[in-house]
Amino acid sequence: MGQFAEQTGLRLGETGIYEGEIHPGWDVLENANGGYLMSMLGRAALLDSGRPDIISLSSHFLSPGRPGPVTATTTTLKHGKRFATTRVDLTGPDRLVLSGTVITGDLRDGEGPTLIDRSAPEMPAPLDCPRTVADPGGLFPPPFMDKIEQRLHPDDAAGATGEPRVRGWFRLLDGERIDTTAAVLASDFLPPTVFNTDLPVGWVPTVQMTVHFRMRPTTEWLLVDSVTHFVQNGTFEIDADLYDESGELVAQSRQLLLIARP
Amino acid sequence: MGQFAEQTGLRLGETGIYEGEIHPGWDVLENANGGYLMSMLGRAALLDSGRPDIISLSSHFLSPGRPGPVTATTTTLKHGKRFATTRVDLTGPDRLVLSGTVITGDLRDGEGPTLIDRSAPEMPAPLDCPRTVADPGGLFPPPFMDKIEQRLHPDDAAGATGEPRVRGWFRLLDGERIDTTAAVLASDFLPPTVFNTDLPVGWVPTVQMTVHFRMRPTTEWLLVDSVTHFVQNGTFEIDADLYDESGELVAQSRQLLLIARP
Repeated sequence: MGQFAEQTGLRLGETGIYEGEIHPGWDVLENANGGYLMSMLGRAALLDSGRPDIISLSSHFLSPGRPGPVTATTTTLKHGKRFATTRVDLTGPDRLVLSGTVITGDLRDGEGPTLIDRSAPEMPAPLDCPRTVADPGGLFPPPFMDKIEQRLHPDDAAGATGEPRVRGWFRLLDGERIDTTAAVLASDFLPPTVFNTDLPVGWVPTVQMTVHFRMRPTTEWLLVDSVTHFVQNGTFEIDADLYDESGELVAQSRQLLLIARP
Repeated sequence: MGQFAEQTGLRLGETGIYEGEIHPGWDVLENANGGYLMSMLGRAALLDSGRPDIISLSSHFLSPGRPGPVTATTTTLKHGKRFATTRVDLTGPDRLVLSGTVITGDLRDGEGPTLIDRSAPEMPAPLDCPRTVADPGGLFPPPFMDKIEQRLHPDDAAGATGEPRVRGWFRLLDGERIDTTAAVLASDFLPPTVFNTDLPVGWVPTVQMTVHFRMRPTTEWLLVDSVTHFVQNGTFEIDADLYDESGELVAQSRQLLLIARP
């Protein structure tokens, strides 16, 4: 088992509730990365439904995820022929951390016409892009950057564009395969788009996030293209498109965040 | 009270559960419009939290909403200083119709820097756009088109672009004011984008939909700009940006749908 699968792993406890652990090193100031927590939410739904893929995951962030034991309580809302819908509450020792609803199914079942008018961004090959490494003892880049391999577009790594857009490659360590659970992590791993602009850099909490899958990921690397169009009235959105190495769309995510106050 | 407020109204029943009714005329073949059902979900959360505005609403569609009585069961997940988070299950006589999570708050509280790089589409004035009228006895345009006033961009009304994009004005009847509850309806009211392309026209069920509010609506009309970038593997997304009459962003929505099979 790879490190990511292990550190998001859940086991069915005696009471019928899944048990797991927020592992150390995924947090900033004891606040675990949102993508990491959502991956556990997705894993609970897959275990509950017995389906192979996440189709859609929507999640609300209710309190910080601190390192330590968590439980995932699942409620089956629908067990349909094509999709299952599962509600999952991820709870820490004293309170609800994350609540979400996850649709699961088999992404290989999809068929139909194709009409596409957007392309993956032009990127140098992954190994020609600089790797983001954690700042030891610092906060940015955060410690969990060492848990995966992230390589940003050189212009974005240098903060050279001034635009609220960040493009980067993502893979797991040691050849661990990216499934839909890991792709949820990928969708929330890049530095926030607005850090590449003149806006204040600071804590930008996610209020709500949704990821829709459109194809099962099969390649070693995923390319994530994240962009913001509207910063206004204290909030902004980050839309991310996730592509595989051949440029095919794997997933789309959108999150609503609060802007850092100066 | 306006017609829309009346037909999405809820009253607190003796058991602590909200009671309402899916009114006739909002359905196609006994399947109520998704935006209409989501408006009821939002209203239940507003009543539960006592906050004035929907901030974010995400919803899963589980079974058809048939005309008749419904109940809305609310669970408060968080009652924070700025936002409340409420889970709502909308249930018909025999089964769960819609399940969602709604963040409520006060949109006037937002403040912060502004950075915007997308504009409202160029549109003729509302009354210079053709009004969509229900096809009496037919299915498209559906009967609920007479419940509001919708005026499409002339090119989109004529199906002249061939592009998966539909732009239209939306207002309520008889001068009823658009609040966030009504804007949720607006976000899901336009004909599906793909009907303007060569793809098969047919039933395109929504799997999941999320609406994020960015400003309180204050104008009589809202302009909805809906677009699709990826039709593939049996699914497509519709992203809609909602603007007020001055071109300021009010809300963004995204839904995942199944493509019609030929």
